[in-house]
Amino acid sequence: MKLFRTLIPLREARSIVLRHARRVGVEEVSFDLAAGRILAEDIVAEMDSPPFNRAAMDGYAVKAEDTLGAAPDKPLVLHRHEPCSGSEPESEPEELPEGEYIPIQTGMPMPRGSNAVLMLEYGKERDSKLEVFKPVTPGKNVAFKGEDVKRGDIVLNDGRLLRAADIGLLASIGRRHVKVRKKGAIGILSTGDELYDPKVDGSSGGAIADVNSYILAALMSTIAKPSRMGIVSDNYDALKAAIVSCIANCDAILVSGGSSVGKRDFIGDVVADLGEMLFHGVAIRPGEPTGFGIIDEKPIFCLPGYPVSMIAAFEMLVRPFLETMHGLKEAMMRQVFAVVAKKMPSAVGRTDFVRVRLDEHDGEYYVEPIRVSGSGILSSVTSSDGFVIIEENIEGIEEGKRIVVNLW
Amino acid sequence: MKLFRTLIPLREARSIVLRHARRVGVEEVSFDLAAGRILAEDIVAEMDSPPFNRAAMDGYAVKAEDTLGAAPDKPLVLHRHEPCSGSEPESEPEELPEGEYIPIQTGMPMPRGSNAVLMLEYGKERDSKLEVFKPVTPGKNVAFKGEDVKRGDIVLNDGRLLRAADIGLLASIGRRHVKVRKKGAIGILSTGDELYDPKVDGSSGGAIADVNSYILAALMSTIAKPSRMGIVSDNYDALKAAIVSCIANCDAILVSGGSSVGKRDFIGDVVADLGEMLFHGVAIRPGEPTGFGIIDEKPIFCLPGYPVSMIAAFEMLVRPFLETMHGLKEAMMRQVFAVVAKKMPSAVGRTDFVRVRLDEHDGEYYVEPIRVSGSGILSSVTSSDGFVIIEENIEGIEEGKRIVVNLW
Repeated sequence: MKLFRTLIPLREARSIVLRHARRVGVEEVSFDLAAGRILAEDIVAEMDSPPFNRAAMDGYAVKAEDTLGAAPDKPLVLHRHEPCSGSEPESEPEELPEGEYIPIQTGMPMPRGSNAVLMLEYGKERDSKLEVFKPVTPGKNVAFKGEDVKRGDIVLNDGRLLRAADIGLLASIGRRHVKVRKKGAIGILSTGDELYDPKVDGSSGGAIADVNSYILAALMSTIAKPSRMGIVSDNYDALKAAIVSCIANCDAILVSGGSSVGKRDFIGDVVADLGEMLFHGVAIRPGEPTGFGIIDEKPIFCLPGYPVSMIAAFEMLVRPFLETMHGLKEAMMRQVFAVVAKKMPSAVGRTDFVRVRLDEHDGEYYVEPIRVSGSGILSSVTSSDGFVIIEENIEGIEEGKRIVVNLW
Repeated sequence: MKLFRTLIPLREARSIVLRHARRVGVEEVSFDLAAGRILAEDIVAEMDSPPFNRAAMDGYAVKAEDTLGAAPDKPLVLHRHEPCSGSEPESEPEELPEGEYIPIQTGMPMPRGSNAVLMLEYGKERDSKLEVFKPVTPGKNVAFKGEDVKRGDIVLNDGRLLRAADIGLLASIGRRHVKVRKKGAIGILSTGDELYDPKVDGSSGGAIADVNSYILAALMSTIAKPSRMGIVSDNYDALKAAIVSCIANCDAILVSGGSSVGKRDFIGDVVADLGEMLFHGVAIRPGEPTGFGIIDEKPIFCLPGYPVSMIAAFEMLVRPFLETMHGLKEAMMRQVFAVVAKKMPSAVGRTDFVRVRLDEHDGEYYVEPIRVSGSGILSSVTSSDGFVIIEENIEGIEEGKRIVVNLW
């Protein structure tokens, strides 16, 4: 099996990939372990907030009608309300009578019959009498029941990446457990006779450290459950055995290496023999030899062996796949807008993944491509601040244009 | 002990806090466990990259001088170099003679004596002869030894938050272990008779769920090692005992609650008795009753009890403290610039922490404050996209201005 003759456009590859991203299941976790997880239910408010009408300012609870016509040079006078001596502490509070007021602090329930709060500075209290220097309208300085959140409102949406404050919100509304997405089990295989595991041995065997599996594991660790399944040599049978064992234990597989031009493409053959190869070769640079297939309904990505190409393919195809698979409804990557400080060349007919540096001055970000002598070097990624995707129908981006930059 | 009479400005509070942020120690971890950790050494390249001069394009390695004067209508002809039949495979390769070329692929070492790569499209090869249609200058399409990274260059700086690609870079240069900052042990105490632990019991005891300790733990979990040390009642002796035990086991302590106006401030008394209170009351809103002291050289933050005020104080004072304590030399928070879509009111004389919503259209972010009826409600944080800090000498921010927005 060779790379398919024609490269397919990125948007087509992405649509195929997303079509095969089956949603992972749901599990319940204690609210305090949910930060960083993806919510798998709508969280509905079970009570109003505020739970009652309450003062939004320190001042005096009044009937707004009683303040009509008040002015600094013509203050009106109200009398401090004193509860009837006979009333029980627990009984329904009586209604504020006309012409009276009750001092009130922010957050306290509005007394029955009052409908506004006169701010401290617009009144002067002495001997249970209040001089009012300014009229208030009904509802003034009152936070109404349900004004912030109404009972039945959705306060946190399905698909949200849960943050610290969300954990507090869950606790405050009595949710001790919450439904989140399980982390998909993603198997990672590296192929190539030239590889050695940099963790296990200094350099025995191969000549090149297998960095890809470690990069992939780190790229996915917040959203999925990556499992490094080892290094497989360039050998059809060994690769087939590895894939078969991986398929049994994982929801999806990422294989890196083995699909570059000029190298015999065992992985393509194995996928085609065990299942179906849906595409192999995407019009992206770097990352062109990326492929995708299905074995036993499980998706398998064939990623390039060069680390930078692999990262490009991951960002353009695997990350959207993982987001859909985990029901994430917000972007995982940080994005900013930036002004192009130096023209970014690009060829029509392919989508470019451009590593960029970001500068900030005078309230604006400026972006320029990183100068590198080849696509292979990993330090071109580590020394960059992020990347820009240049769509295939665009021939470079001119200086001065505002574009989206994805930050690492 | 009462709040200090005058509130100190945020910048003064921050400078006191940072002065007491003692750097945590260093530990060595395996490179594959270092993602998300803070690097505590400079990583120096031990070899050049590229390690030799190599082709940056597919084409033909030539002597640039041999192509002088070539043109589409007047091609020059070079001869394919054939190695001497007698040369051993391992011996020093011979020098490319004048008038000859060698086909070469991207990444391959430049043959001795060649100094440029003629791109495929500018030559036509047939029967070991190459027609050259365009001259190349010396160095053209060559990636020079050390061009990307020179031996001795720092490739990753001390204080960097390590990312996925960094892990690959460490592996590729043979670093199996790397020095990172230890995670500081931060004790978390909640004070208040009204509190119950929402994880432990439904609602027994207090009337209000202690959400603060869970929020603080989640806010810090990526950078530090938070330990929830429980709920302490509003009682001088109980609080003193809790602080003493906490101090023994932690690098710093965060206490929430107990320092609001109108409540007896036991925590201020305890800190003053055991050590020294350095400030108590900061000109920020919300978050005003925030205090800071030192006991046995260990920093102790007294944070407000209202969750939103506590989060504001955390972002304005505790986060910078943790960054300094862990030697982090880049911002933890994501920031974007945005245009103010709706005036943000603010009073001169205090720093405002404004929860905001962010919208995006036509390549620009727009920001507006969230409307809330009081500062206390946690959903004003969860429904916001981030916050804006309005400095104390500024009286609101007008529509149309570009400002920095911190995103959750």
